[in-house]
Amino acid sequence: MTLPAPLTGVVPPVCTPLTPEYEVDTESLTRLVDHLVGGGVNGLFILGSSSEVAYLPDGHRRTVVDTVVRHVAGQVPVLVGVIDMTTPRVLDHARTALAGGADALVATAPFYTRTHPAEIERHFGELAGRTGAPVFAYDLPVSVHTKLDPELVLRLAADGVLAGLKDSSGDETSFRKVIAGARELPDFSVLTGSETVVDAALAMGAHGAVPGLANVDPQGYVRLYEYARSGDAEKARTEQERLLDLFGMVTAGDPARMGMSSSALGAFKAALHLRGVITCPATAHPQVPLSPAEVEQVRAHLTAAGLL
Amino acid sequence: MTLPAPLTGVVPPVCTPLTPEYEVDTESLTRLVDHLVGGGVNGLFILGSSSEVAYLPDGHRRTVVDTVVRHVAGQVPVLVGVIDMTTPRVLDHARTALAGGADALVATAPFYTRTHPAEIERHFGELAGRTGAPVFAYDLPVSVHTKLDPELVLRLAADGVLAGLKDSSGDETSFRKVIAGARELPDFSVLTGSETVVDAALAMGAHGAVPGLANVDPQGYVRLYEYARSGDAEKARTEQERLLDLFGMVTAGDPARMGMSSSALGAFKAALHLRGVITCPATAHPQVPLSPAEVEQVRAHLTAAGLL
Amino acid sequence: MTLPAPLTGVVPPVCTPLTPEYEVDTESLTRLVDHLVGGGVNGLFILGSSSEVAYLPDGHRRTVVDTVVRHVAGQVPVLVGVIDMTTPRVLDHARTALAGGADALVATAPFYTRTHPAEIERHFGELAGRTGAPVFAYDLPVSVHTKLDPELVLRLAADGVLAGLKDSSGDETSFRKVIAGARELPDFSVLTGSETVVDAALAMGAHGAVPGLANVDPQGYVRLYEYARSGDAEKARTEQERLLDLFGMVTAGDPARMGMSSSALGAFKAALHLRGVITCPATAHPQVPLSPAEVEQVRAHLTAAGLL
Amino acid sequence: MTLPAPLTGVVPPVCTPLTPEYEVDTESLTRLVDHLVGGGVNGLFILGSSSEVAYLPDGHRRTVVDTVVRHVAGQVPVLVGVIDMTTPRVLDHARTALAGGADALVATAPFYTRTHPAEIERHFGELAGRTGAPVFAYDLPVSVHTKLDPELVLRLAADGVLAGLKDSSGDETSFRKVIAGARELPDFSVLTGSETVVDAALAMGAHGAVPGLANVDPQGYVRLYEYARSGDAEKARTEQERLLDLFGMVTAGDPARMGMSSSALGAFKAALHLRGVITCPATAHPQVPLSPAEVEQVRAHLTAAGLL
Repeated sequence: MTLPAPLTGVVPPVCTPLTPEYEVDTESLTRLVDHLVGGGVNGLFILGSSSEVAYLPDGHRRTVVDTVVRHVAGQVPVLVGVIDMTTPRVLDHARTALAGGADALVATAPFYTRTHPAEIERHFGELAGRTGAPVFAYDLPVSVHTKLDPELVLRLAADGVLAGLKDSSGDETSFRKVIAGARELPDFSVLTGSETVVDAALAMGAHGAVPGLANVDPQGYVRLYEYARSGDAEKARTEQERLLDLFGMVTAGDPARMGMSSSALGAFKAALHLRGVITCPATAHPQVPLSPAEVEQVRAHLTAAGLL
Repeated sequence: MTLPAPLTGVVPPVCTPLTPEYEVDTESLTRLVDHLVGGGVNGLFILGSSSEVAYLPDGHRRTVVDTVVRHVAGQVPVLVGVIDMTTPRVLDHARTALAGGADALVATAPFYTRTHPAEIERHFGELAGRTGAPVFAYDLPVSVHTKLDPELVLRLAADGVLAGLKDSSGDETSFRKVIAGARELPDFSVLTGSETVVDAALAMGAHGAVPGLANVDPQGYVRLYEYARSGDAEKARTEQERLLDLFGMVTAGDPARMGMSSSALGAFKAALHLRGVITCPATAHPQVPLSPAEVEQVRAHLTAAGLL
Repeated sequence: MTLPAPLTGVVPPVCTPLTPEYEVDTESLTRLVDHLVGGGVNGLFILGSSSEVAYLPDGHRRTVVDTVVRHVAGQVPVLVGVIDMTTPRVLDHARTALAGGADALVATAPFYTRTHPAEIERHFGELAGRTGAPVFAYDLPVSVHTKLDPELVLRLAADGVLAGLKDSSGDETSFRKVIAGARELPDFSVLTGSETVVDAALAMGAHGAVPGLANVDPQGYVRLYEYARSGDAEKARTEQERLLDLFGMVTAGDPARMGMSSSALGAFKAALHLRGVITCPATAHPQVPLSPAEVEQVRAHLTAAGLL
Repeated sequence: MTLPAPLTGVVPPVCTPLTPEYEVDTESLTRLVDHLVGGGVNGLFILGSSSEVAYLPDGHRRTVVDTVVRHVAGQVPVLVGVIDMTTPRVLDHARTALAGGADALVATAPFYTRTHPAEIERHFGELAGRTGAPVFAYDLPVSVHTKLDPELVLRLAADGVLAGLKDSSGDETSFRKVIAGARELPDFSVLTGSETVVDAALAMGAHGAVPGLANVDPQGYVRLYEYARSGDAEKARTEQERLLDLFGMVTAGDPARMGMSSSALGAFKAALHLRGVITCPATAHPQVPLSPAEVEQVRAHLTAAGLL
């Protein structure tokens, strides 16, 4: 399909269900896609951080793209993460994603290596120039360990290099500068990666949201988006606060036993499993699984939110 | 060949020469291997940070392994970096490296994702357990953004999971704890990744060094190692100070125009080009090339060190 | 005066005007107080980061407290920062501030030393317990290098240790958790330290704002607060965006010549000088003064905002 | 007394014994001074991080200076820390220290505020220029959150602004650059703040060491210094490794209950108490005290080191 410009609405970063043997569970993945598209979302972002992209070998990545693109069949646009350390490796992923039918690419700044704004600019420029595809910049300092400069983002947007921004930086001033600057760029899409301040981001003028928690409750985020778009700030806030409570599930895992990825992605998958969407809640190695007691915490959050 | 246990001596992290089209320049790479092996080094570490591994697509990585393993032909052991974000992706690289004839693997803790000591332990355990190959842990917080705990390293060494450590952490107390603990582990190799305190590391009891600058001056580091091994601290210090001055080349690149990777790897490759070892000094995208004036700074360092 | 519970509205962190000899310019300070109180603000926060508290010797701090408390004469509450490294030093400042007539104290977690949540809890507990004064926690990770945990803040609020929070952390989820939790704590005041997302913070339920930029344009922030309180989200957003543009002045200083404190505090003082509120725009040592060209940038921002 | 130029040898950062009421225990402090001077140290550094300077109100600081300067009576030079956020506050401490008889001042770069190399240069320049006293720069990124640039340190040394450097940065290349550059500056003293690589630092050419652990075992560090100065690297290494084991005491405190300052300074004071040097092992608020079981760990380290 043609990507809307700007892309708007709720675009969940789709979890990647795995079998007990850690292969991609394509049946669960298609059920998850139905759960999301049926929930009213406006696009899908596959192979992002919530998809465990950092844990998926290239073969798994290809399977995810093929499965989702074929099953979605143009109902909503499919954005594909091409997460890797530098330009040449990202370009390899981009070619595979586009061959598989991606509607747009999502890329971070270089990581692992020490980088520089001039190199970041060159990186996005090459990615867009060599693929001709719409490119979304993914600002995620917690993983990438650099912050995208808002002036750089706006310059790349004005130059046609970037089609959008997914901002998970938590830097409100930077985010707001991009939103304000994007008023002059009618095709550029500014999306928040937050789960917890989507109402505020939309009220500021963001075009949409990419919340990992939308895997668990797509209808909730779609309602929130609709309330915000129709100017009903009070209802948007109430819905957001319900989702803030639900988001408490991400700390279910004991920090003495596991890291935040194990805990948060483990909780999302446990919730999808408890809701009957996916068959197996396994997360990829070396993540630590949630204990039964921790899964019960996830269940309690779902129950409190009226999702079980 | 069989990997010595413990591995000792100078083990340069081999630069990856590229053609002007950014393909692996296999002829230059074999000349570089001859330059290093002829310079007396005790092993080669390919596909590490100084090899621009973060910038090399999988195809380039395979070419490097095949070229070096075939050309070395067992004269010295070849350690191969399997640098990627998490266990499943690292395992893919490990299988390729071992199929290509790697004598040992070198892996970091997981990165990009938020991790935890229990997950790091599981990561190295799986890598060793599933491949059966000797595994060196690579402690590089500047890239990985976590520090390996010395007690964890020693426990994994005692359990036979790790064959060695390449420590580029700059944490002297941690490094010294591993050296002290390794006295009970006769096969475990403790290597410093420093260019500038190799004499001190060897005096503390480290088994060897993996200095990127040894690409440029392998004889210098081999002399330094021999002086240190024979207990001639004064000569070792003098040689190390000469190499400290030479190492000044890594700041040749203007920090207003480029990052530290562009500057340091650009300088190493410019030096290899000026010394006639490699045909083209290009570094991979999106690194910024050194200007002619910056290359002249590299030349001045080589001249001062008596290498031109 | 008695501190309202909860404290609400606009509470500027008052700049500290200096003479050319770097003494406190008490005449300018009283004019600045009149400028702010006359602008409709709901309280004053003296000796915070925007007051250059880190640069003020104890004698200067005393002069500021005495001057402001006497001049305000109970028109609005005066909160006093007691910024120092640990509990015993903070207690010394607290005694001086309360003797001078402070209505409340504002303190960060310990800094310079490496700390721990249990120590942070003990720190605030002692400060409140030994002084009996209302204590606001100041969450400023950019200076303090730890983040206050929202559960800890709420527990201290429920225990009567904390009267409020000034959140300059930029962590939206944490901030929102405190706002949500504070619904059960009718006396607890949640204030944002942001200049640029005050509309969003108020829409979420924050009680007020402590924006450094309110020194320059108190009326703007008071209007913004009134629009938000009356539910006029659109007008609040428009006013906030005007202030976002005005806030651009903080990058007037060349980052090759000076740090962010020199640039931002230099810009605020230059603006107050250009607006005729203070006599001399000097900032304390070792901050670098703005150049005339940089002051012109500040002037341009004032002109664009209709403030000159 | 006149400060030797360069200052050499072992210069312990003297702990500050407290009474159970958290006043300075001047009797214990003079016993500690005797313990250190009698142990053969070459100078004393009071009011540094190991002195809990961050926790001492100004009154306590004055008491420490007066007590130590009077008791030392010129046997060894007394360096005094003037640790505070910025130049004006540091100057206040400097005046007090010099009035109390300090032989030299020790200052960090500005902290809490965001700073810049140009401001750091100005900071040290003012401190030296306005006091006329010898100034040592204290490089402690773990507390100050910036790293001193080695070229800046050498420039300030050449300009007569700095009399020496206490390097606790853990950046070996930077430290070595300063040592190498200081060969041209015969009066400039380069001291390591490390407890665990003093042998290596001295072998590189450092003039001395400022190890917190020397409070507990001054004789050990004096022996280490003498071995290193006489060129007996093997004995120096053996002594250093004994001290490395002893240094294990700093992790006696449970990290789930307390921070590193509580644990390390608590261990030093517990050791001094167990050795009969000080009367009470209390550490200042809000540090968490060691439990009896944790004190037993400290005792075990002392016993293993032959110090009980």
